[in-house]
Amino acid sequence: MWRRELAVSAPGKVILHGEHAVVLGKVALAVALDLRTFLRLRPGAEGRLSVSLPGVGVRRSWDSPGLRALRGRIAADEDESKSPSVEQLDALREFAGIAAGASAPESLATLAFLYMCLAISAKYGDVPSVEIVVWSELPTGAGLGSSAAYAVCLAAALLMVCGAISCPLQEGESTSRWTEEELTLINSWAFRGERVIHGNPSGVDNAVGTWGGALRYQAGKITPLKRVPTLRILLTNTKVPRSTKTLVAGVKEKILKFPAIMNPVLDSIDAISQECQSVLEAMPANPSPEHYPVLEEFFDINQHHLNVLGVGHPSLDRLCQVTASHSLHSKLTGAGGGGCGITLLPPDTSPLAVEAAKQDLCACGFECWETKIGAPGVTLHSCSSLSAQVLHALAQS
Amino acid sequence: MWRRELAVSAPGKVILHGEHAVVLGKVALAVALDLRTFLRLRPGAEGRLSVSLPGVGVRRSWDSPGLRALRGRIAADEDESKSPSVEQLDALREFAGIAAGASAPESLATLAFLYMCLAISAKYGDVPSVEIVVWSELPTGAGLGSSAAYAVCLAAALLMVCGAISCPLQEGESTSRWTEEELTLINSWAFRGERVIHGNPSGVDNAVGTWGGALRYQAGKITPLKRVPTLRILLTNTKVPRSTKTLVAGVKEKILKFPAIMNPVLDSIDAISQECQSVLEAMPANPSPEHYPVLEEFFDINQHHLNVLGVGHPSLDRLCQVTASHSLHSKLTGAGGGGCGITLLPPDTSPLAVEAAKQDLCACGFECWETKIGAPGVTLHSCSSLSAQVLHALAQS
Repeated sequence: MWRRELAVSAPGKVILHGEHAVVLGKVALAVALDLRTFLRLRPGAEGRLSVSLPGVGVRRSWDSPGLRALRGRIAADEDESKSPSVEQLDALREFAGIAAGASAPESLATLAFLYMCLAISAKYGDVPSVEIVVWSELPTGAGLGSSAAYAVCLAAALLMVCGAISCPLQEGESTSRWTEEELTLINSWAFRGERVIHGNPSGVDNAVGTWGGALRYQAGKITPLKRVPTLRILLTNTKVPRSTKTLVAGVKEKILKFPAIMNPVLDSIDAISQECQSVLEAMPANPSPEHYPVLEEFFDINQHHLNVLGVGHPSLDRLCQVTASHSLHSKLTGAGGGGCGITLLPPDTSPLAVEAAKQDLCACGFECWETKIGAPGVTLHSCSSLSAQVLHALAQS
Repeated sequence: MWRRELAVSAPGKVILHGEHAVVLGKVALAVALDLRTFLRLRPGAEGRLSVSLPGVGVRRSWDSPGLRALRGRIAADEDESKSPSVEQLDALREFAGIAAGASAPESLATLAFLYMCLAISAKYGDVPSVEIVVWSELPTGAGLGSSAAYAVCLAAALLMVCGAISCPLQEGESTSRWTEEELTLINSWAFRGERVIHGNPSGVDNAVGTWGGALRYQAGKITPLKRVPTLRILLTNTKVPRSTKTLVAGVKEKILKFPAIMNPVLDSIDAISQECQSVLEAMPANPSPEHYPVLEEFFDINQHHLNVLGVGHPSLDRLCQVTASHSLHSKLTGAGGGGCGITLLPPDTSPLAVEAAKQDLCACGFECWETKIGAPGVTLHSCSSLSAQVLHALAQS
C-alpha cells in the first residue's frame, strides 16, 4: 500500500541540430528542455485508482476489481516487443469508453495511463490505490516531447508504486534521481506508453525525458552525451501549424530533384551536429565564454541549411530577424514550416535585452518562454519543494 | 588614315553563381550584363590623338611625334606575357604626369589608354590620329567589370584603327560583330589593358566583355557556354562599400575553422553552378517557363550558402526581403558584404510588379537598374543606331 505524497517530473525536448537530416541517416542532437511535466502521486481511497489531467480536462477513477479483470485480458498474451497490441488497445478503449480511432489528446492520454498502469502492475505487483495528477508546462502538439514527458512521469511513478524501482527520496530531501538501471527500466516503459500515443515513435523523446541533458541520435541508435552544460534559451512557438509528414516528404523530393546540390547540405548539417557535440562536451570542463559565439554560428548556419531544405517559414524568418535585432541567434527546431524556434541566451546577455526580445516576439503573436536546455531527466520531488505555480496547477484537478 | 565615325560597345559582367567558391577551385558562371560601355571613334586632326572619358573627367590629347618617341621606349623590350612591365608603366606615368601609385580611376584609365594605344600601334601600325570618347552605363568599383568593358572597347577600336582586325560594319548596317579569331585578339589585348588597371586580374571580366553570353570559369580555365538565353533581371547596388580582400580572407578563415561544415557548402555551390549551366544551355532549344522556378530556387539556395560563408550583409537581406515581397528571387553577386544583388525577372512578371519592386528598392537607398544578362559581347555600331541617351553622354566630352 503506497503511503507517501510525492511528485515526479520529466523534461520536454528540443532538437538542437540535425532535424530532417536525421531521417536520412545523419546525426541529430536532442536536448532536454526545462519546461517540465509534473506528476503528483498520493495514496488514494482503498480500492480506487484515479487520474486527473487538468490541462486536457481528464478526471477519471476506477475500482480495483474492474481493473484487475481487465488486466487479465491485457496481460494474457504479453510479448513486450509487440506491446501494446491492437487487441490490448481495443480492450482498453472499450473499458474506458473511448471510440475506436479517437485521437484527441485526452483520449490518448487516458489510454496510455490505463495501459501502463495495468501492464506494469501485472508484471510487478497489484493494481495500486493511488491518486495521480499530471500537469505540464509544455504545450502539446508543438514537437516538444510533451507526450514522452507524460509517459516518463507515469512509468517512474507506477514502477515505484509497484516496487519495481526504489523510492530514492530520503525524508527531508527535496529532489532525488534513480540509478542508471532504474532509469533504463523507466525509459523502456515510457517508450511503450509513447507507442500508445504515437504508434511508432523514434524513442528519442522518452530517452531525453528519462536521462535529460543531451543525446545523440543516428540511424536508430541513441547515445546520451557524457556531461553537458545547462544553456539558457528562449523557446518561441510561432503557433503556425504544420504537417511534419508533408515537410519530410518535401525534403525528400528536393533531394531527389537536386541530389548534387542537396546531399552536401545534409553532410554539412551532420558535421554541425558532431562539432556541436564536441563543444557541448568540452564546456563543463572548460566553461569559457568563447564557446557561445561558436554555438551561435552553428545556429545561424543550420538555420540557413534548413531553409535550403525547404522547411523554413516567414514566421521563422521573422523570429530570427527579431532576435537578431537584439544580437541574439536563433534557429527553428523540429519539423519547421512554422512551429518552434530556439534562441541562445549567452551568459553575458543583459536581462533587459532578453525582456525586450521576449516582448518583440510576443508582439509578433508568438508565445515565448525563457527556459534552459540540458535540463535534468526524470526527477523525484518532495511536494513541498515544488513551486507555488506548479502546486497550484496540480491542485486544480 | 581612319575615316569613319563608329562606336564600339562592350557589356559588364555579373557572377551568376560561384563567387567565393571559385577562389577555392569550384566552378563559377559569369554572365554578360546589358549595362554597356560605349566608345565613339572619330577621325581626329592629323597628328593628334585625343581621349575623353566624361564619366571620370578625363580629357587629354597628345601629338603623334611625342607618342612615337614614347612608343620607342615602351616597345623596346616587348615580351607579351610580362607586358605591361613596371618600367613601361613608369615611363607612361612620367609622360602623362601621373604620380607613382596613383590609383584613382582617371589615372588608371589614362594609363591603360596610353599603354594599349602605344603597344597596339607599335605592333600593327602607326600611332592613329583619332578622337576617342568612352562613356559607360556601368558604375565603377561595383564589381561589374567596368574596367574590363573599357579595355575591351579600347582593344577593339585600336586594333581596328591599326588594321589588325577588320571593320565588319557594312554601310547601312546598324551593328556588327567580329570573327572568333578577331575576338580572341581583342580579348588578349583587353586582358593586357586590364592588367594595367588591376595588376593581376582573372581574365574573366574581359572574356565576358568580349564574348558576351555566359562563361564557365574554374581553376583559371575560361570556357564560353555554347548558347545561352537572355534573361531579364534587376541589378541593385546597395551602395554599401566592402573590401573584397577582407571578405575572401574571412571565407578562408571560416573554412579552416570548420572544414567539415564548410567544405560541403562549397561542393553544393559547385553543383549549383553546374546545374545552372545545364539549365541555361537547355533553355534556347526549349524555352519553357518551367526553367524559371529552377533558376529562382538556385538563387535562393546560393544566397543562403553565401550567408553561411559569411559574405552576406543586412543590406542584402533587405534586398532579398523586398524583392521576395513581390514574389521575386534575389542573390548577392560578386564579393558580397554589401555591393550588388541580382533579381531574376521571369517572363510572366507583371510590369507593375517590376515597377513596385524598383520603387521599394530605391526607397531603401539602393540604386536599381532593369537590365538583362546573357547580353552580346563586344559590338560595332553605326553611331546613328545608338540611343539618344548614349549619344548625348558621348557628346558631353
